[in-house]
Amino acid sequence: MLNFEFKNPTKIIFGKGEIKKIATEIPKDAKVLMVYGSGSIKKNGIYSQVKKTLAEFDFLEFGGIPANPEYSVLLDALDIIKKENINFILAVGGGSVIDGVKFLSSAALYEGNEPWDILTKSIRTYKGIPFGTVLTLPATGSEMNSSSVISRKETKQKLGMGGPGLFPVFSILDPEVVRSIPQRQIANGITDAFTHVLEQYMTYPIGALLQDRFAESIMQTLIEIAPKIISDPSDYNMASEFMWCCTMALNGLIQKGVPGDWAVHAMGHELTALYGIDHARTLAIIAPRHYEYNIGSKKEKLAQYAERIWAIKSGDTLEKANAAIEKTEKFFNSLAIKTRLSEYTDDYTDTGKFVEEAFIKRGLNGIGEHRSLTPADARKIIEMSY
Amino acid sequence: MLNFEFKNPTKIIFGKGEIKKIATEIPKDAKVLMVYGSGSIKKNGIYSQVKKTLAEFDFLEFGGIPANPEYSVLLDALDIIKKENINFILAVGGGSVIDGVKFLSSAALYEGNEPWDILTKSIRTYKGIPFGTVLTLPATGSEMNSSSVISRKETKQKLGMGGPGLFPVFSILDPEVVRSIPQRQIANGITDAFTHVLEQYMTYPIGALLQDRFAESIMQTLIEIAPKIISDPSDYNMASEFMWCCTMALNGLIQKGVPGDWAVHAMGHELTALYGIDHARTLAIIAPRHYEYNIGSKKEKLAQYAERIWAIKSGDTLEKANAAIEKTEKFFNSLAIKTRLSEYTDDYTDTGKFVEEAFIKRGLNGIGEHRSLTPADARKIIEMSY
Repeated sequence: MLNFEFKNPTKIIFGKGEIKKIATEIPKDAKVLMVYGSGSIKKNGIYSQVKKTLAEFDFLEFGGIPANPEYSVLLDALDIIKKENINFILAVGGGSVIDGVKFLSSAALYEGNEPWDILTKSIRTYKGIPFGTVLTLPATGSEMNSSSVISRKETKQKLGMGGPGLFPVFSILDPEVVRSIPQRQIANGITDAFTHVLEQYMTYPIGALLQDRFAESIMQTLIEIAPKIISDPSDYNMASEFMWCCTMALNGLIQKGVPGDWAVHAMGHELTALYGIDHARTLAIIAPRHYEYNIGSKKEKLAQYAERIWAIKSGDTLEKANAAIEKTEKFFNSLAIKTRLSEYTDDYTDTGKFVEEAFIKRGLNGIGEHRSLTPADARKIIEMSY
Repeated sequence: MLNFEFKNPTKIIFGKGEIKKIATEIPKDAKVLMVYGSGSIKKNGIYSQVKKTLAEFDFLEFGGIPANPEYSVLLDALDIIKKENINFILAVGGGSVIDGVKFLSSAALYEGNEPWDILTKSIRTYKGIPFGTVLTLPATGSEMNSSSVISRKETKQKLGMGGPGLFPVFSILDPEVVRSIPQRQIANGITDAFTHVLEQYMTYPIGALLQDRFAESIMQTLIEIAPKIISDPSDYNMASEFMWCCTMALNGLIQKGVPGDWAVHAMGHELTALYGIDHARTLAIIAPRHYEYNIGSKKEKLAQYAERIWAIKSGDTLEKANAAIEKTEKFFNSLAIKTRLSEYTDDYTDTGKFVEEAFIKRGLNGIGEHRSLTPADARKIIEMSY
């Protein structure tokens, strides 16, 4: 294992009926801003549950955080936080709402004039306004990590931020919220979490035995539950596993002591930027081709994955590796996730070139586990994905 | 999964050469008490490494914490803490030293007259003096949890304490310390960690898919590394896995959302009290017989363990369960850990009766996953272990 540091102080409160515990976790004298998204929480009962519990607090609310949390919208919330002396934020939503709240937490205490600098200048947040979350959409793991991705339409940027001050104080994970999530979002969540694990696992092997097995545990569980939770999102046991897998996939644990890749995300983000394809679906388009293109450095780990996850026992290392890629792609397809760019847009013939140019423009000269994939490599991978 | 809460704020600093990071983790103005055990750290170089790093701090030291940390010894350290206004404690040792420091952390801020009350009255610690650890003996997981077991010879008691105030602020896990650990202690550590996992896993099944797989990951890794680390404790990669497995086995993660058993520990403690048998070895004596005795309620989980850990594919549930128990016992034996009480003492014929009486005296009327094992059941299990 590589040397590492690990600290994750978020308190997870997991289980049915736990949303009411907000009341014991938020300081009694807090002035609270409840932040949410497009309003789906008003249809599924979560909004009223949360508001009922917040009744004993001095609180305001701010709805309308969009998917890919938008800077201009967040600035409106930031105004309220400052004018109203908010000192605790409650995010009620999925990854976008939680990511948005992380920005607010940081920006509220940021002393510079332009909060966007936090993102462009990679300013790490060591202290933000405390915040908690009520997770309504398992996928990103944002409920138990300290990073965030914020979008800004005006400048066409989508940038990351983070720091030890951005862990939620608490996160309430009630799997009963899953029953009202549309099938498409559940499929996205499974794909997102599965790819999060792959990004931390599918690298050159360094013999991190326990970390590998933890990563494999999450993937095995996701594969096992996927058809069940998609066909019946009201199955509480399956919803519990789905939710816990998504959290564990990106709460920092499985990334410790091992190399990370994250090239699939780097390329996938471009497809969202170009075509507005759902984040998870861009990962499913890129991942199989990325592993094919890089099979030279990844074949040992792919073969281990083939054996342990897909029970592929025959063939040599390369044959197992290729069979595992095929299984992975079929798994995404089984969730009704298409894995070819041409299935999402007719306007794909220059996508490889566009991504190459975008990477060059942004100085993204080396991505992947060895930071050795060039913009030209990215172009080839994208072209393979047509 | 069952509802659960999980919060573990300990910062883990893992890897070779990391002991020097003590200096950046302890507050600069702290007055530090360095606490250690029998002095083995003076032979393996850890003592001098730590003292060199502490040179820039105002610090005192207290050595001599024995295995099964003894109350009367800890009171001497407590005197120093109070007289010298110590406000940070550094534990350098294994589970006994760390457990002892947890008591000191709590007792230093305890306002009652008799610190032993913390244990006898089950007073939970919400705030203690902050402390960090440098782990020198992987086994108990105390470096990343908030509980402690303290012994008191005068009253022949061995009692537990804990609370959210007793997580180490940081723990430094440098696998290089493993090279100087005697083979017997490594075997004990593997057995201790393995049984910790079993106590949290080998219960009635509740369908906690991911949690089961995490537990299985630790056991699989321990089985894989055991012969290698015992034959060559200087193998850094194997030492890393050994150390990380021991921490993950009892840092709270795998116990969340699932029932716990812990009957093996309850019975094992009695064997240590009666005969001074190493803690880990008492677990290896009890566990196989406990699972045989309770095979009715545990057979499904034993069969799952048989299939996934020991690759036992033939036979019905009961046959697989029995085969898994046999494999477990042989695993302990492969570490030169004997699994029959008569191999440790000739004076065993009344042990079952003694344990039954001790349980009755202490009001321990129901142990195990259903709190349904009576003192008479414990007697039978002990008698089966002769």
